[in-house]
Parts: sequence; C-alpha cells; structure tokens
Amino acid sequence: MAQTTQVKAFGTEAADQDLREMTIVRREVTASDVEIDILYCGVCHSDLHTARNDWGGSMYPVVPGHEIIGRVTKVGDAVSKYKIGDLVGVGCLVDSCRTCESCQKDLEQYCLNGSVGTYNGKDKFLGGHTFGGYSEKVVVDENYVLRVPENLDIKAVAPLLCAGITTWSPLKHWNAGPGSKVAVIGLGGLGHMAIKLAKGLGAEVTLFSRSTNKIEDAKKLGADTVVISTDPDQMKSVAGKFDLIIDTVPYDHDVNPYVTTLSVSGTLVLVGYIGKMATALNTVPMIMGRKAVAASVIGGIKETQEMLDFCGEHNIVSDVEMITMQNINEAYERMLKSDVKYRFVIDMASLKK
Amino acid sequence: MAQTTQVKAFGTEAADQDLREMTIVRREVTASDVEIDILYCGVCHSDLHTARNDWGGSMYPVVPGHEIIGRVTKVGDAVSKYKIGDLVGVGCLVDSCRTCESCQKDLEQYCLNGSVGTYNGKDKFLGGHTFGGYSEKVVVDENYVLRVPENLDIKAVAPLLCAGITTWSPLKHWNAGPGSKVAVIGLGGLGHMAIKLAKGLGAEVTLFSRSTNKIEDAKKLGADTVVISTDPDQMKSVAGKFDLIIDTVPYDHDVNPYVTTLSVSGTLVLVGYIGKMATALNTVPMIMGRKAVAASVIGGIKETQEMLDFCGEHNIVSDVEMITMQNINEAYERMLKSDVKYRFVIDMASLKK
Repeated sequence: MAQTTQVKAFGTEAADQDLREMTIVRREVTASDVEIDILYCGVCHSDLHTARNDWGGSMYPVVPGHEIIGRVTKVGDAVSKYKIGDLVGVGCLVDSCRTCESCQKDLEQYCLNGSVGTYNGKDKFLGGHTFGGYSEKVVVDENYVLRVPENLDIKAVAPLLCAGITTWSPLKHWNAGPGSKVAVIGLGGLGHMAIKLAKGLGAEVTLFSRSTNKIEDAKKLGADTVVISTDPDQMKSVAGKFDLIIDTVPYDHDVNPYVTTLSVSGTLVLVGYIGKMATALNTVPMIMGRKAVAASVIGGIKETQEMLDFCGEHNIVSDVEMITMQNINEAYERMLKSDVKYRFVIDMASLKK
Repeated sequence: MAQTTQVKAFGTEAADQDLREMTIVRREVTASDVEIDILYCGVCHSDLHTARNDWGGSMYPVVPGHEIIGRVTKVGDAVSKYKIGDLVGVGCLVDSCRTCESCQKDLEQYCLNGSVGTYNGKDKFLGGHTFGGYSEKVVVDENYVLRVPENLDIKAVAPLLCAGITTWSPLKHWNAGPGSKVAVIGLGGLGHMAIKLAKGLGAEVTLFSRSTNKIEDAKKLGADTVVISTDPDQMKSVAGKFDLIIDTVPYDHDVNPYVTTLSVSGTLVLVGYIGKMATALNTVPMIMGRKAVAASVIGGIKETQEMLDFCGEHNIVSDVEMITMQNINEAYERMLKSDVKYRFVIDMASLKK
C-alpha cells in the first residue's frame, strides 16, 4: 500500500449536489514528485461541467481545479528541477505516456495514449481517479510542474494555466506576432487572455462581440478594435482581414460569417466549443482564399512554461475576482451568467481555516 | 482599335447547346505578350461547368480550356523569358492585379482584386471576356506563361496546368514530403495527380475509395495503400494516421469520417467541392488533435513553374486519353460518368484540319 497523507478538499459526491468540504488522500512523494502547498486555484468552466457531469463520464467525488499556484513543500530524491519553497504551477495535465509521437513532440495535451487530467484522470499511483486543485496540497511529477515567475501578481497567474495556455498555444502554432492581425471571438475567461497574449506577442488585435457594452473593457485589455458581429456593415468592413481568429465561444454557433473575415491562408481556431456544430461550412470563401477551420485544446508542458516565462517578461496576468473556497457554489452560478471579470480565483487559505 | 487576328475555336453559344466550331479573335502581341500555337488542351470539369453555366455567371460564347500546351510563335518587344519555338503552357490564369498582397506573395490565384481566368475572365485588351484553349492560338502576357520541360510526353503535361497544380499547391503548402503520410480522397483527374505528386514528393500515400475496383489502378499510380471508405473496420484501422488529406471529391459529402483519420495537427484540404456542405463538423476529434479542415484552389504562377520543373525531373505526367476537338461533346458526357482514365486531352491538330 502506497503511503498517503490526508488533506482537506472541496468537491461534490454527485452531479446534482453542491460542492462541500471533504477529505481526500495524496500520495507520499515518489522519487520524481514534488508536493505543493496550494495558494490559489482558478475556476474554469470545465470545473463546473465536470462537477455536474455535463459531458458525461464524471467520476465521483469530483474535486475540480486545474489552475493551481503554490509553493513546493517536499521533493522526491530524484527531483532536479524544483526545491522546497519554489513557486510553481500545475495546469490541466499531471501525466502522459511520455513515449508516443505527441509526447515526444512536447504535445502532451494530444498524448495518443491519453494524458492524465489533473482531476477526473486515471490515478496510476493510488488507483481511482485524480483530484484537482480545490484542496490543500497536490503531489505531481516534476515533469508536469511549471515554474512561476516571482515578479507577477501570483493569484492572477492561476488562470494562465488553463485559460492562458488554451489561447497561447494556437496563437503560437499559427504564428501570431508583429505584423499579424488576430481577432478574438467572445470576451470571457479565454477571450480576455487571448487579447492580452496576442497583444503581448505584437499582433494587431480585434475583438468580435455581439454587444457594444464590451468595447471599453476590450480596449482596456489591449484590443485595438472591436467589431460588433451583429452589425452587417461592421462585418463587411473586416472581410478578408484576419490572419488568425481565436474563437472562444463556448456554445454552438455559426462560424461561416467569421470565415469570410479571414485573410488568404487564414485560420479560425475553435477553442471553446466541444461538440457537433449545427451549421455546416460553406466551402466557397474557404476555397477562394485557402482558409481553414481548426480546433485546439490547452497546450503542452514546454509551451506552458514558455507562456509563463513570456508573461513574466511582459507582466501579463489574468483579470481576476478573488473568492473563498466556501463561495464556490455561488461562483459557479455567477459563471453560468458570465458574471465575472474575467476569472474567479480561490484564495486557498480559506480552506485551511 | 487593337489589332487582332481571327482564329478557329470550339465553343458554345448557350448553356443548352453543344460545343461547335466558331471563329474568335486574338489580340496582336503587345510588348509583354507571347503568342502560342496550341498543340494540346486538357479537358477539365470546370470547362463543362462553365459551358453549361452550372455555377452561374457564364458569358457566351464560352470557349473553354485552361490546360494549354503549345509553342511560342511570336513575342512582344519587351518579352525576356520566351523566344519563338519555346515549349510553353498556360493554366487557369492569364493575368492578375500584380500589386495586391496575394500577388506580391506569388499567390495570384487569390488576387484580392480578382485574377483573370483563362476563359470567362474579363478581357482588358479587347473588352468582353477571355477565350480559352479550345482554339488554334492564344496570346498571353509572358508573366502568366509557364515553361514546359521538353523531356516529358507533352500531351500528357497539359492536365498538370490545372489538375496538377490544384493538388500540388496544398501538398506543398502543408509540407508533404519524406516521412509524411498523405491520403487522397477520390480517384479522378485531381485524385490521380495527387497520388503521383505526393508519391513524387516522397510521402507515404493512401487512397480513400468507395469501391474495391480502384485498388489496382491506385497502386499502379503510386499509392502505397487503398482504404475502402465504406468499410468501418478499414476506416478504424487508419484513425489518427494522416498528416494531410487531399479531398478531391467534386460533390457534397460528409468529411467528419475522414477528419478522424487525421493525425495530431493534421489538415484535410477540400479541392474538389465548391459550395455549402450539408453536414456540419463535429469539433470533438478536431479539438482533441488540433485538426483542421481547409480548402484550396489551383496555385500561383511561381509554384506552377516549380511543379512543372519537379515533374520534369521526376518524369511525372498525367494519364490521358486523347480525343479530337470534334469529339468534345461526347467527352463531356463520358466525363460526367467518370468514364475517363484520368483526363481527356484534345489533340488540337484536329481543329486545324
């Protein structure tokens, strides 16, 4: 029997129950593990979807949380990258096969043998499933732990581990940078990070929004322009403009009107909606400009570290609203109404009281 | 009034009429023009669609033909690239704005001001519209003329100017080459060139076909494997395999089953179907592997020359069935039934009799 430690956590026993305090176990560090005392944990839509089994396949109890910031409290004998006291992060993945073509290419998020999610993944050490960051501590193999720049406002770094990397990865893969024109669809947790990161990379940034009340905020976040997508004249004015569109909309929607705003060889990347689309593509504007519709999920460990380092250099963090662990159920309800600018982060000190 | 020459041609006066012999005029060469005596002209599906106004917008008389091979018979004063007697080709484009971002990037096929089609394009010299290669001669600006390698079987080079470049351009843009796995959907004019060119580039090549009777031919053309797309087991056996899929199917079809056969970061490129698709995309396999659905049309002048040079070096030509100009109407009927292996080419000597 593996050695374990009991820690306090917040989770739910069933899809229709609120989250409440519970006790879970963490393994004792193995040779390559680090133990992390969790300081902050961001609140992602996936947390809510998993807690409520919206996608099916949730294993209970669900302890969500994959935007984890903390300090190293213990290291295994073979750990070389981290020492006690280091400021670190854990994102959506805590393991992968490390041998497949994707893992060999630092694309652990696309591990062909299935990466291990930070929560609701298969726990190969203790059996059962993994528990996320809504807890006092977490134990993670050092190869899946990120170094967090000390100069940043660390509570606002937490959302970079999911919302940040989810937008950073396509921005980098499709070469956003100086001279490129990037548009972002939707201004939520993902969208606000997409604007900040694209701007940080030197791109000209436009937000597509359905309502004029997002204009001021979008410009504060760094957008050069806001295009109201429900206004045909405004949409026409940006026909053929964008090299890359990061589509963060989390529900089904028609992408055809946005495809026409792509430049020649441009790509629209879906990062928010997972499922079958209701509206089919029209290939005419695609074929007449070598345009593409793609999709992408989070990012690999190496590029997550590159993003964190980039954010450290450019002083980029998320805009956050702090909550206590005990307020998580209320936060979920507000999140469903998009009533947050732009990410809730749990001050995990509240769990220790 | 511009000086002109009368030449024999084959065309149609209306969508519901057969093609027949007619007389058209060609401009006298301007300073940058070359006059070409047409030896061979390939027969493309677009010829038929334009003759019959299937896409709307056809201007009559329609003289089709954009897979032109011939010899230079006259050159303008400023022509530097070609001299009388040179073996040359003309593809789908005879002009473009030359100043837009696309033209500056050698992507004349995506000219933002509208490239000039070899037929049914706007004729800026004589007014009216352009006439294609079903004629004795054509006069084209030297910058839109291609040099044809003399070592090739030149009658079989003609289809490279459309079917060849249409598949070459996406193969090159999406980096097909040694070590990459390319699949081709559909074995017609485009499909058979996609197999030859992908194989020539060093890729491992698979044909997706609905029927087993294509297996032998596909392997003769260079395919390493044929996957019967109506067999669920065979489709499952190639899940996640292909870096690039060239989809040459000319009618609406569901691409979702093929998307699941893309590798991580793979792209399916539509080159055959222009229009609204009936079946919407499922983003799940796309998001879980950074997969893309794109589309592409023909290619630029520079890359068409590169393709012809490559074909010269690798001795790649189209598989053709020769016809006379007078047999064009029968050829159209056979083409509609896919009764050609794999491209009709008109021996233009037949027009001169």
